[in-house]
Amino acid sequence: MADGTLAQAGEFAVIDRLVAGRRQPPFVVVGPGDDAAVVTSGDGRVAVSTDMLVEGRHFRLDWSTPHDVGRKAIAQNAADIEAMGGSATAFVVAFGAPADTETTRAVELADGMWEEASRLGAGIVGGDMVAAPQWVISVTVLGDLGGRPPVLRSGARPGDVVAVAGELGRSAAGYMLWRNGIQDFEALRRRHLVPEPPYGQGAIAARAGATAMTDVSDGLLADLGHIAEASAVHIDLALDELSADLDAVAPAAAVAGVDARQWVLGGGEDHALVATFAAEPPPGWRIIGRVHEAGAARVTVDGVAWTGSTGWQSY
Amino acid sequence: MADGTLAQAGEFAVIDRLVAGRRQPPFVVVGPGDDAAVVTSGDGRVAVSTDMLVEGRHFRLDWSTPHDVGRKAIAQNAADIEAMGGSATAFVVAFGAPADTETTRAVELADGMWEEASRLGAGIVGGDMVAAPQWVISVTVLGDLGGRPPVLRSGARPGDVVAVAGELGRSAAGYMLWRNGIQDFEALRRRHLVPEPPYGQGAIAARAGATAMTDVSDGLLADLGHIAEASAVHIDLALDELSADLDAVAPAAAVAGVDARQWVLGGGEDHALVATFAAEPPPGWRIIGRVHEAGAARVTVDGVAWTGSTGWQSY
Repeated sequence: MADGTLAQAGEFAVIDRLVAGRRQPPFVVVGPGDDAAVVTSGDGRVAVSTDMLVEGRHFRLDWSTPHDVGRKAIAQNAADIEAMGGSATAFVVAFGAPADTETTRAVELADGMWEEASRLGAGIVGGDMVAAPQWVISVTVLGDLGGRPPVLRSGARPGDVVAVAGELGRSAAGYMLWRNGIQDFEALRRRHLVPEPPYGQGAIAARAGATAMTDVSDGLLADLGHIAEASAVHIDLALDELSADLDAVAPAAAVAGVDARQWVLGGGEDHALVATFAAEPPPGWRIIGRVHEAGAARVTVDGVAWTGSTGWQSY
Repeated sequence: MADGTLAQAGEFAVIDRLVAGRRQPPFVVVGPGDDAAVVTSGDGRVAVSTDMLVEGRHFRLDWSTPHDVGRKAIAQNAADIEAMGGSATAFVVAFGAPADTETTRAVELADGMWEEASRLGAGIVGGDMVAAPQWVISVTVLGDLGGRPPVLRSGARPGDVVAVAGELGRSAAGYMLWRNGIQDFEALRRRHLVPEPPYGQGAIAARAGATAMTDVSDGLLADLGHIAEASAVHIDLALDELSADLDAVAPAAAVAGVDARQWVLGGGEDHALVATFAAEPPPGWRIIGRVHEAGAARVTVDGVAWTGSTGWQSY
């Protein structure tokens, strides 16, 4: 057993407890407990991405449970693989925390990570635990592209449609509700703590011939800006086509005194997928705009530049 | 250009500067700049390991330059792949730092990482930059096993010899010299800041039939303890056979007033490789002990339990 604090239990006893009883997927050749894990890669390639979450900056332990933080850390990494047209297969996790952290809190974090990984059919195959002044969680995800070319940000072409799978604006709405101490709109407040990326839609988009794709981590306009820049195209969004998202957050926006468009266009962390298609997008995707002639890379809304915030700043 | 602080430059300008001009190895299909990187895996499997380094805990910026920290972070991750019998191919790096960090310091960190990765023929293929109260660096390494089975900790068998490639005790010696403000023994003090793992020897050991292997990250006795436990064997070291390492640190030990055996047996972070072989070890390896009959897993020195410290504690 490893009760009490991390320092009382000791690194190896805690790791034993975090690892015990987890079921690794069949493509994991060597799981946790050796110098490295070994996983098979379906098509001879592996997609890889990493994200770091710092307490106080990316999550607050007075808003989120450790379980929530674990789910979020896995979800946002998995979304990066989806955005390449692949699916997450394995994660490694580095976890820094104060030595007086209760071991049960680390177990809750790992439980949340495993719950989210299990939804993907993926495993958490290794990690590191260290002492740090505050919680800091770094997740690296490996993914399988299923034999398809990766869907890059640079492939959008004039004439393509822009389409979205998943939710927009919910996380930003939830954040504002938490910030202002507004107790209603439980679903929105939950969504800020635990995003729900549209798992599986990345591969569906790739199979349907998506020409470019990314996930909405910084904000719709900011992330489409990356596609516009990498593809050297002009992307124009139609506000009318965002009405489902606008309607979903409008009541909360009215209470919070915020323009709902700000959340839908500028809010990140929902980890929706946004992609461009030369033809009709597949089921599960809704058209929100069009790609126009090349030239100065830019994103507009109903033909004009958006004057509000376009997304998250890292510093 | 991205001068001034990270906050003044902004995340994307800093990343552009960190990435510019780097040469990726040929197996990198998609490098930095998209949602994920894509690398080919030589034999359809990928080895993966992760480590987190926290300022004040794993490095001090008044002892180490950012360049040193970058080399160390890459080296200790690469050693985990060597310890499986493989070679590092690609790294992803998450870097947290205060917003007022000078951009040039982040560039020096990346330069150190690239210098060390280049010694391995590997690339740094992606990353994340976030604001954090102190520097925190999380590196994940991918590795290639070259078609061989991974060398686990669990394969040591009675009758095997125990052998080492690389240095022992140097990092611990250097740490004590820094701690005590002793200005001599420059080479040992350098080695504490930047380890020199015996790159290539992991694959050589695997090809020579190593039955078990690990790298010395926590301390020789502690890390051999993991092999003893995983293999359910008794490992006995011969102090006489460690004389090259003992001699190398003896002058510094005399000045610091420390028993040199403590550094060689208990000091970690040199990232030497220690392995067991059923036959003669290959060139580059020196025998330091033997594997005895199964039973209670334990490690002894000249037949008796070591009473000093056996290694690093994470909390």
